[in-house]
Amino acid sequence: MSRREPAVPRGFRDFEPQEMILRKEVIAKIESVFRRYGFDPIDTPAIELFEVLAGKYGEEAESKLMWRFRDPWGDREYALRYDLTVPLARFFAMHRNVPLPFKRYHIAPVWRHEEPQRGRYREFYQCDADIVGSPYPEADAEILMLAKDIYRELGMEGVKILINDRRILRGVFEKELGISDPVKVYRAIDKLDKIGVEGVKKELRSLGISEDIIGKIESIISLRAPLEEAVRDLQIRYSSNQHIIEGTKHLEEISTIVRSRDIVFDMSLVRGLDYYTGPIFEAVVEGIKIGSIGGGGRYDNLIEMFTGDRVPATGFSIGLDRVIEAGIELGIFNISRKTYTDVYVVIMEREKEIFGYALNIVRELRSNGINTSWDLMRRSHQKQREYGRKLSVPIILYIGKAEVESESITAYLVTRGERLEVKKETLVKTIKEMLRA
Amino acid sequence: MSRREPAVPRGFRDFEPQEMILRKEVIAKIESVFRRYGFDPIDTPAIELFEVLAGKYGEEAESKLMWRFRDPWGDREYALRYDLTVPLARFFAMHRNVPLPFKRYHIAPVWRHEEPQRGRYREFYQCDADIVGSPYPEADAEILMLAKDIYRELGMEGVKILINDRRILRGVFEKELGISDPVKVYRAIDKLDKIGVEGVKKELRSLGISEDIIGKIESIISLRAPLEEAVRDLQIRYSSNQHIIEGTKHLEEISTIVRSRDIVFDMSLVRGLDYYTGPIFEAVVEGIKIGSIGGGGRYDNLIEMFTGDRVPATGFSIGLDRVIEAGIELGIFNISRKTYTDVYVVIMEREKEIFGYALNIVRELRSNGINTSWDLMRRSHQKQREYGRKLSVPIILYIGKAEVESESITAYLVTRGERLEVKKETLVKTIKEMLRA
Repeated sequence: MSRREPAVPRGFRDFEPQEMILRKEVIAKIESVFRRYGFDPIDTPAIELFEVLAGKYGEEAESKLMWRFRDPWGDREYALRYDLTVPLARFFAMHRNVPLPFKRYHIAPVWRHEEPQRGRYREFYQCDADIVGSPYPEADAEILMLAKDIYRELGMEGVKILINDRRILRGVFEKELGISDPVKVYRAIDKLDKIGVEGVKKELRSLGISEDIIGKIESIISLRAPLEEAVRDLQIRYSSNQHIIEGTKHLEEISTIVRSRDIVFDMSLVRGLDYYTGPIFEAVVEGIKIGSIGGGGRYDNLIEMFTGDRVPATGFSIGLDRVIEAGIELGIFNISRKTYTDVYVVIMEREKEIFGYALNIVRELRSNGINTSWDLMRRSHQKQREYGRKLSVPIILYIGKAEVESESITAYLVTRGERLEVKKETLVKTIKEMLRA
Repeated sequence: MSRREPAVPRGFRDFEPQEMILRKEVIAKIESVFRRYGFDPIDTPAIELFEVLAGKYGEEAESKLMWRFRDPWGDREYALRYDLTVPLARFFAMHRNVPLPFKRYHIAPVWRHEEPQRGRYREFYQCDADIVGSPYPEADAEILMLAKDIYRELGMEGVKILINDRRILRGVFEKELGISDPVKVYRAIDKLDKIGVEGVKKELRSLGISEDIIGKIESIISLRAPLEEAVRDLQIRYSSNQHIIEGTKHLEEISTIVRSRDIVFDMSLVRGLDYYTGPIFEAVVEGIKIGSIGGGGRYDNLIEMFTGDRVPATGFSIGLDRVIEAGIELGIFNISRKTYTDVYVVIMEREKEIFGYALNIVRELRSNGINTSWDLMRRSHQKQREYGRKLSVPIILYIGKAEVESESITAYLVTRGERLEVKKETLVKTIKEMLRA
């Protein structure tokens, strides 16, 4: 038999049980908050028609980052979904029967052909909540309250949600600074975290922007303040700029509902994707260098590209891998649990009566919801115990001749080093108590 | 803005919230049984290197069904995973640190480029549990007990698990009938459910098999009996056929552990995939025409293709979509719940004090784990109520001037048509009681 070198594609990775146990715990917490806020789940295919995703994200995403390929036995062009937002817009256009507002969540992988680096993979999970149908600040406020609550539920202190508004950006860059096509400028500013102020200035110079304007941009994007305060400042400073007035009024109403000092206006927040039209958000953790752990915003024109009629929407996306990385760095998550197994049953001798007795115990524990394993390798009892220990199973049961004769079980609670004899009839109750302790 | 026709690729589909709520319930049950049996989760990328999947499944899968494509900006050949078993073998070869036996579960989508038909999509979820490292019947027995328990947990009565063994098939078709390459014969027999006995005979004729042998095959594959009984018969009938002796001995030991009349030997069970080496399984529901709702078997040579050393393994895969279809047809699952939302708060007037009071109620309910929604559309109270009704939210709360003044809430329990006044302080307790009722 010819041997093949086992490998995963570059930029992809596996998850071992101990990582998965943490991931599932984090997902369960995020999902419980989604539900608490009245969001319901949908699912969409990993593969979309290329034409569905085309023209939505911006030039770089479409030409460099999208996993695009042809049908292996046909002509159709496909792409793996790049996010969960465009698939939602496509879904909504095909399911117009859903009552509005449509509050949906979606937890699923997306694919981007990015250069792999620490914590950045080509396949990663997003946890998205979006509200389709409402143009009002109430919907954006709902999204922000949800995001704040998720990070709180995860035990993450010091999370700030940065906010800006595409209309404010437009007002500043188009009207005030006279830049007719500010998208390239946004893209330069979007790199601020990675390349610093000098890097951004260099990029702006390469776009042919004058030193005078660059100086103004540098000053403008340094504006960062609690939302309420920033809104007041902007309203005074740009009182005759229609775009800015519109944006700040929307943000002011959001602020009235959310009432939180953790929502911080940041003029350097621009977001990379083309489809945003109003408020934009990004969650960051203070004190650690991990970039954003979530982001989103309002996209009032995207769904129209499928439906033909205007359907406003807003939402937020949690980057699961980033959140986990941040939580580990903050010391609030740890990859310590290696198994869901509660009990490992060691069979002392492979003798028919003992084996039968042990198997009955296994069946009884399982039928009472206790996660139980036993020897499938015909190993010595020493080796069986060793296996249970390696997996860090919290309770090890020993069953041999003595146990069969006395209709009992010897139980060993590994974490406390406690050993005790338990009568068969009280085993389930005792184990449940041990697990609760 | 140019409008694009919203569509999904042929053979793919979306899932609406009411479908997802059922899917999540079914997955949660399957997962709870996986854990009860001591299995732990892993995850692997959707995209594998083509060379990893190549040469594992058989000619048809590889040449006609695999989603195969090139890196959009490179030369590497990829494929979307075709099942979860070959990825497990590859995973195991790259994670040799896991203690043996390695009992893993994996719930994830796979992709096959099949001709779409009722209940068969090109992307579908598999729920797999496998045991890596044990060559013994104990491991196969564990897998069968697990499968039986899953269908029981799902409330599916009348599920039979059909069983055969690749060694018995070999003994019969190679030794007894003298067919040197029986794989094509297996493939014809595998279609029995779809094309009937006459169809199979026709295919066998087209393979150049003589009428005499076809008659013998017809008779042999009609053997179907409770496992214990069938094993005894085969052992007597083929007492000098080494392959059959080996296979039946293994099945006999499995039978001793599992002890169930629901395990039925069926000589016409051959399974489509190339990698099986020992016992093979398939779960069917009596009385409905839905084909198999799960299947698996032992594959003692597959992992060796990556590791170079022999690592035995056995497992079972539940087809989520098939199980759901079967459950709906049996009347034990229903798609009735449209939302996880427990409470919809109707705000009677958009007046500041009322709005603030209502929002505080919303916050309080959510922080007590009650799934709550409120108006994000600035609608009349009639329209708000209508929305809550459309979503089938079980409890509707009304908050207006009277409620603010009396520090109370009017609660309406939709399912029972009950309306009552609740004091603000007892609201959470009252709602929790209503939801339990």
